[in-house]
Amino acid sequence: MSEANIYNKQYLMTAGPTPLPPGVSQVMAEPIAYHRAPAFVEVYGRALERLREVFQTSNQVLSFAASGTGAMESAVANLAVPGEPVAVAAAGKFGERWKELCDAFGAEVAYLDVPWGEKIEPAALEQLIGSMERPPRAVFATQSETSTGVVHDVRGLTAAAHAHDAVICIDAISGLGAIDLPQDEWGVDVVVSGSQKSLMCPPGLAFCSAGERAVALAAEGPGSHYYFDWQRTAKGQAEDPPSSAFTPAVTLWRALDVALGQILQEGLPEVFERHAILAGAARAGIAALGLERFGSEDDGANAVTAAALPDSIDGAKLPKLMRDTYGVTVAGGQGRLKGKIVRIAHCGYYGAFDIVVALSAFELALRDLGWDVEPGSGAGAAQRVFADAGRAPEPVG
Amino acid sequence: MSEANIYNKQYLMTAGPTPLPPGVSQVMAEPIAYHRAPAFVEVYGRALERLREVFQTSNQVLSFAASGTGAMESAVANLAVPGEPVAVAAAGKFGERWKELCDAFGAEVAYLDVPWGEKIEPAALEQLIGSMERPPRAVFATQSETSTGVVHDVRGLTAAAHAHDAVICIDAISGLGAIDLPQDEWGVDVVVSGSQKSLMCPPGLAFCSAGERAVALAAEGPGSHYYFDWQRTAKGQAEDPPSSAFTPAVTLWRALDVALGQILQEGLPEVFERHAILAGAARAGIAALGLERFGSEDDGANAVTAAALPDSIDGAKLPKLMRDTYGVTVAGGQGRLKGKIVRIAHCGYYGAFDIVVALSAFELALRDLGWDVEPGSGAGAAQRVFADAGRAPEPVG
Repeated sequence: MSEANIYNKQYLMTAGPTPLPPGVSQVMAEPIAYHRAPAFVEVYGRALERLREVFQTSNQVLSFAASGTGAMESAVANLAVPGEPVAVAAAGKFGERWKELCDAFGAEVAYLDVPWGEKIEPAALEQLIGSMERPPRAVFATQSETSTGVVHDVRGLTAAAHAHDAVICIDAISGLGAIDLPQDEWGVDVVVSGSQKSLMCPPGLAFCSAGERAVALAAEGPGSHYYFDWQRTAKGQAEDPPSSAFTPAVTLWRALDVALGQILQEGLPEVFERHAILAGAARAGIAALGLERFGSEDDGANAVTAAALPDSIDGAKLPKLMRDTYGVTVAGGQGRLKGKIVRIAHCGYYGAFDIVVALSAFELALRDLGWDVEPGSGAGAAQRVFADAGRAPEPVG
Repeated sequence: MSEANIYNKQYLMTAGPTPLPPGVSQVMAEPIAYHRAPAFVEVYGRALERLREVFQTSNQVLSFAASGTGAMESAVANLAVPGEPVAVAAAGKFGERWKELCDAFGAEVAYLDVPWGEKIEPAALEQLIGSMERPPRAVFATQSETSTGVVHDVRGLTAAAHAHDAVICIDAISGLGAIDLPQDEWGVDVVVSGSQKSLMCPPGLAFCSAGERAVALAAEGPGSHYYFDWQRTAKGQAEDPPSSAFTPAVTLWRALDVALGQILQEGLPEVFERHAILAGAARAGIAALGLERFGSEDDGANAVTAAALPDSIDGAKLPKLMRDTYGVTVAGGQGRLKGKIVRIAHCGYYGAFDIVVALSAFELALRDLGWDVEPGSGAGAAQRVFADAGRAPEPVG
């Protein structure tokens, strides 16, 4: 591969920011609206209702202008209390973030530190909580761990927390809208998410759906917060018409309204099924290339598929080569997985040929680095999955 | 005025969100970028440098995905300590927000509560600080108080704080980029701002320029914060190339890069002069309509001009009439000024004929509500200011 032979067209294949549907991109170029004017309030109110549908909840989905971490901070700032116990179960970079947040807010953290790539066992969480001297005010865990691709058993983890009467907060930033998480049906107390992953929007909006019990717990706690205060935000959103406590990111709300409309037009079950087909194709492709998947062998890990790189491949080079030579931007590993994995994302506005493109570029880059790959073998395996799927795994929009 | 006679074209004349230059709107419709990819990192690094120029500082301008209040919270969360004294000087809704934030973070607040519409006297602030039993860890005040239009004497307030060796934090959310605030020259310790006012961008980015002394003070304090932590954000931004601690709002950064480029192309002195001419025209127009300005009679109040409404006018109706009948969205009063004032904004992407439109719609609406106005008298007075200005008060872009 010579330096001069560079592929021009660019493909975004990361787990956030994810590609935007054309209608989502275009609505952001329209004239900007005043946030108190009826034209915007209508968009805001409709998007808030649509969020409820996508979160599968009757809660207010509290919304903030922030990165996804802002939604996590809102959960910790409203629930954790300095010197009081909480529990955190983590098996990756984003699980660790819960601990960092709880530490920053002075909580006493009981920590279940599961090796990256493994699934968190609900029984292990239950044991941890049971062993605590004082019961935790709240338990924090992750649905789709973006750093490893692993999807944790939210239903089981919720049951483990509830067995000890604790509220649980789930980071669903990359998984919400890709993998089923019926919040009210499963009784998950708090679900947080962000705009820039499966919700097919740019980054900058953060969401926190908190149930009655969590809201009551937050109301009794002190705590140092204002911008991320649940009560202040809930009060504005509950008004008729709804209003935002602080100037909302109006451009991103226009985008969100369009994107959620497309998700609901496709239908949540169809959206989850599409992600399952795309993930199955990515897994088949990786296997056909003679590579191992990184992380637990789980059919439900449908937001991101991680391929473990063989020792003979320079893992720092591979994503760079895919991006700089072939124009296909995928993510490598983060933190302790740096250089060891490549992550192919399929959460959000992804369809069949996105997986074909990602695998095709992966094949070419692997060949460049000396891995024995028959061109088309990975993509071909993915195509066979699509041919057998009985439906086109394509998003609306 | 019959209900049927509605003006269709819409004009946004508020102090945030403010109108966007076409190039700023359009860049947001371009394909979204991955925040770690070189194409975005280049935009991010350039915009960070441009922020420094607009803040007139050599500080890192710490940036967060948040509303402007998020930048204020970053200052309070990093500087205030539970049980330790701070001082707040306020003369409007946004000044009061500093107090609410300091209360939320448990600080012991010495409060200078100046009547809305008046200017804060630096001597009064100095007296307040001098009377405190323990010196304040920090002092908080406002540059342009958007709720009243009044612009406070930042240089004088800074001197008052420094006379007692306290660091001062200035909310310049609506004024930065409209009214001169040479941070380093005046030695202002912390300046916070937001994207959606004079910086001609959508809401969703918050900025905090903290000087060496404030950063050192923050580093020694405990405090419950993570998302808005200065050290974490400074560390990322100081890397080469700069990186964001959390997923940045990439779409808004593209917009910011374009908008700051236009501001710097126009030139900061020219930008400030343009705002002065537009404000002078708005003041002349209000006087010609036989109305009083609300707030201190100050030639430096160049971000927002507030007109006091006579008792005979239903102040709740007027902005609604201007918007729903004439298509011109201006803001009325907030909080205790509800129904008492109308605010004509001219901060950001505003030129001469925006003022003409705002005053013309104001005239028509005043006539509808029974005020004796000669059509064209207010706009005509503004036009005379433009004719005499010796330059076209027009933005680049």
